[in-house]
Amino acid sequence: MKPKSIKTELDAIRARSPLLARPGFLIRRLHQIHTALFLEETRDHQITPVQYSLLTALAEEGEMDQNTVALSIGLERTSVAEVLPRLEARELLQRRVSEADRRVKLVRLMPKGYDLLESMRVSVQRAHDRTIELLSEPEREMLLVMMARLVEANEGHSVAPMRLR
Amino acid sequence: MKPKSIKTELDAIRARSPLLARPGFLIRRLHQIHTALFLEETRDHQITPVQYSLLTALAEEGEMDQNTVALSIGLERTSVAEVLPRLEARELLQRRVSEADRRVKLVRLMPKGYDLLESMRVSVQRAHDRTIELLSEPEREMLLVMMARLVEANEGHSVAPMRLR
Repeated sequence: MKPKSIKTELDAIRARSPLLARPGFLIRRLHQIHTALFLEETRDHQITPVQYSLLTALAEEGEMDQNTVALSIGLERTSVAEVLPRLEARELLQRRVSEADRRVKLVRLMPKGYDLLESMRVSVQRAHDRTIELLSEPEREMLLVMMARLVEANEGHSVAPMRLR
Repeated sequence: MKPKSIKTELDAIRARSPLLARPGFLIRRLHQIHTALFLEETRDHQITPVQYSLLTALAEEGEMDQNTVALSIGLERTSVAEVLPRLEARELLQRRVSEADRRVKLVRLMPKGYDLLESMRVSVQRAHDRTIELLSEPEREMLLVMMARLVEANEGHSVAPMRLR
């Protein structure tokens, strides 16, 4: 892609609708699109994208306290408090009071949680792939890199601050 | 940016956290970040990004029926039914029953709505700019173009289908 052709394309996009030249509007629409693709691909499993991220974080990190879970996926604490009981009722994870500090609730993935992650892996990957499949391979890599840079640089600027490893 | 350096950067990102290599995760985080920046910049006005998009669409298109409003910004009809009365109570817009078809509700922007759009313009632009300010100018243009392509190509794949002009 030459810089000049990108500028021309951007002008044409802006002419179609000024909303399409606003990063925030595009991001909100992409979020809706990815969520729809995710639910379409994984319908049988009754798991939302956020719940899948939560289970992934537990699989990678092992047992964590609830607040660390919230931070690791950028989720409001109140949402975590809503989501965890639902996943616990399905025996995907288990919560227990920490023996070291009884105010702390620890969360860990259960065997059914590991199984679910494994059985969803292919369809989840397909949802991610479909979200950006229109782009060429180099474009996809560039998009991911640019988005990751913005996310990492803005960790503090979010309704739910996220802390990455 | 050379393709090779992008690949190296992507590998490093993926090594920091596998979540950061998932388009859906990055998009959700960017959405949270932009929303936080938008609210930070426009706090005094008590308007959400979606409400601002709605007012913008009305300013551009003139009077529209409720369903067209929903389609034009990619918002679920039920959400539109929630948002409109709130904006009407603030005298930013007005609704009336269509004389041609009494089942149709028409919506139009009121003078206070135009004034609000104007008084928010600079801070809204700042929120959009800050969302992607870490990137160089050519990178920003490339990001916008790639996101717009994905949004336009996936209009049908969304919880709330959007129809652009």
